[in-house]
Amino acid sequence: MLGELASRRGLAKAITLLESSLPAHRAAADALLTRALPHSGGALRLGLSGVPGVGKSSFIEALGLQLIAQGHRVAVLAVDPSSSVSGGSILGDKTRMERLALAEGAFIRPSPSRGVLGGVASHTREVMRLVEAAGYDVVIVETVGVGQSEVAVAGMTDCFCLLQLPNSGDELQAIKRGVMELADLVVIHKADIDKAAATRAQVQIVSSLRLHGQGHGPSGAAWVPEVLQASSQTGEGVPEVWAAVQRHQQAIDHDARRHRQDLAWLHERVQDGLRHAFQTRLGHRLPDIEEQVRAGTLAASTAARQLLQEFLGDPHHG
Amino acid sequence: MLGELASRRGLAKAITLLESSLPAHRAAADALLTRALPHSGGALRLGLSGVPGVGKSSFIEALGLQLIAQGHRVAVLAVDPSSSVSGGSILGDKTRMERLALAEGAFIRPSPSRGVLGGVASHTREVMRLVEAAGYDVVIVETVGVGQSEVAVAGMTDCFCLLQLPNSGDELQAIKRGVMELADLVVIHKADIDKAAATRAQVQIVSSLRLHGQGHGPSGAAWVPEVLQASSQTGEGVPEVWAAVQRHQQAIDHDARRHRQDLAWLHERVQDGLRHAFQTRLGHRLPDIEEQVRAGTLAASTAARQLLQEFLGDPHHG
Repeated sequence: MLGELASRRGLAKAITLLESSLPAHRAAADALLTRALPHSGGALRLGLSGVPGVGKSSFIEALGLQLIAQGHRVAVLAVDPSSSVSGGSILGDKTRMERLALAEGAFIRPSPSRGVLGGVASHTREVMRLVEAAGYDVVIVETVGVGQSEVAVAGMTDCFCLLQLPNSGDELQAIKRGVMELADLVVIHKADIDKAAATRAQVQIVSSLRLHGQGHGPSGAAWVPEVLQASSQTGEGVPEVWAAVQRHQQAIDHDARRHRQDLAWLHERVQDGLRHAFQTRLGHRLPDIEEQVRAGTLAASTAARQLLQEFLGDPHHG
Repeated sequence: MLGELASRRGLAKAITLLESSLPAHRAAADALLTRALPHSGGALRLGLSGVPGVGKSSFIEALGLQLIAQGHRVAVLAVDPSSSVSGGSILGDKTRMERLALAEGAFIRPSPSRGVLGGVASHTREVMRLVEAAGYDVVIVETVGVGQSEVAVAGMTDCFCLLQLPNSGDELQAIKRGVMELADLVVIHKADIDKAAATRAQVQIVSSLRLHGQGHGPSGAAWVPEVLQASSQTGEGVPEVWAAVQRHQQAIDHDARRHRQDLAWLHERVQDGLRHAFQTRLGHRLPDIEEQVRAGTLAASTAARQLLQEFLGDPHHG
C-alpha cells in the first residue's frame, strides 16, 4: 500500500489532483501515478453495465456489502458519458448506495463532473490505479448502457458483467448494440419480480450468445459467457454472481488481458491526442473544406492531403 | 465526360498516375482528380462482397453483360486486402471475367498490386471518380469477405450487396463478423445447385436480419435489406437483383449517403495520415515504452502524454 493514500481523505485528494485539467497539476499527477503503479494491479477489476432502471446501484450495494462482510475492501468508480455532455452526472450520486457508502472498507467515487469521454475514461483508469495502491482489492467500475462507455469499461476491467431486465425487448437491444459481445457475464436482474420471464430471458440470451459467439466469449476460447439470475431485493443469486466472477478469473489469462488493455490504451490515448491537436490547430478550416467536398469541387482525399501537409509541415507527405 | 479520359487507353494511363506512389506524381494526380470531379458522381456505385468461392466474378460477369445489353457502360474495380500483404492479388486477374472484358462498354481494372489497405481503398475511391468522368454509369466495386475491406467498400458505394453460399455455416460466419449489418442486399448465389438449401438459407438470413436490425438496414429506416436467390450459371435471379438495386436507389437518400461517405473519408484519411506520421517519427521508441508499460513502471496514460509532447512539440499538451 502507498502510505499517502492510506486515509480516505488522502485518497480523495489524490484523485482530485488526477482529475484536474490544469496543466500545472499534470506533472504532480504523473509523479503520483508513477509512485502508485508498483502498488497497484492487485485488485480484481469488475466492470458493470446496464440500461438506466436495471438496478445497477442496488446490485453494487448488495454485492459490495457481501464482499465487505467477507473481508474485502471495495471501491466503486463510474464512467459516465452523460457528464461530458451536460456537465451533470447521472452516476455521481453517492446517496444511491447509502448503506455501502457508510461501510468501513468501501470507497465510492462519483464520476468526474466534466470532460470528454476519453478523458473521463482516462481518469477512471488512473483512479483505478490509485484505489488499488490504497489497498482496495475489488474495484467495481460501473457505466450506463450507452455504447462507447461500455467499450471503455470492458477495456479496463478483468471481467465485464452486463445487467439485463427480465423482458425480451431488452435483450434484442443489447444484441443490436453489440454490447452482448463484450459481456463475460450476463445477469438477469430483478429476477424475483417475474421468475418465469427471467427464465425465458435467460434461455433466449444463452441461445443468442451461442449464435453470435459460437461458444467463445470476449475473453477467448477458455471462457463461455455465463448467464445468471439475481435479485438485490431478496439477495438471491448475488453470491452466485461472485462465484461466476471467480470462475472467470480462474479461466482466463488475466495478465495477458491486462497487458493487451494497457497497450490498447496507450495507442488509443496517442490517437486521441493527435486528433485533439489537429482539431485545435486546423479545426477552424474544416467547415470551409467540408463545404468544398460537399459541392464536389475538392476531392476528399486531396483535401485530407492538404490538411495533413499543413499540420505536419511536410510537403512530401502522402 | 472528361475528354482526356474518353479512350480506354487514356483512362488506364490516368489511373496509373493516380496509383503512383511517387510524391512527384501526386500533384499531377490531384490536378487530374480535380478536373474529373465535376464530371463524376453520375454513376450508380454497387459494392459487392462474399467469401472466396461464392462466385463473385461469374456474378459480376452475368450482371455486367446484362447491363451492357441494356445500354449501360460498366466499370469493375477491386479492393483487394491481400495485395497489401503478399504483393500479389487475388482479385487482379482480368481473365476471370473473359466475356465481360471483351465487351465494348466494359472497363475492368485489376486492383493495384501493392499498398496498405487504406491506400488501396483510397485509390479505388479516386479511380471511381475517374471512371465516372470517363462516362461509365455503373461502377461495381468488389472485395473479398475479410473484414476491413468490406467496411471500406460499403463506405464508398450507394448499395452494398453480399453474396452468400446456400449453406448455413456461411450465414453464421457473416453474422458473427458483422458484415450482414453492412448489407443492403443479400444474394444467395449458386442457388441452382441446391434449391432447397438456398431457400432455407434465405429464410434464416431474413430472420437474423430482422433480429439484428429490427427491420432497418444500414441505409436507414426507409430500407429493409432484401434477400434474393440467383444463379449466374442459369442466369436466373440476376435481373431481379438489378431490380432490387434500383428499388434501393429509389428508397434511400442517395445524396445524403454520398455526402456522409465523403466527409467520413476525409476524416479517415486525416486520421490515417496522423497515425502514419506519428509511426514514422516515433515508432522506433514504442518497443521500449511498451516494455515499461508491460513491466508496470510507466502508466500507459503517462507514456501517451510524453510521446504526444514529443511529437507535437507542445509542453502543455494533455
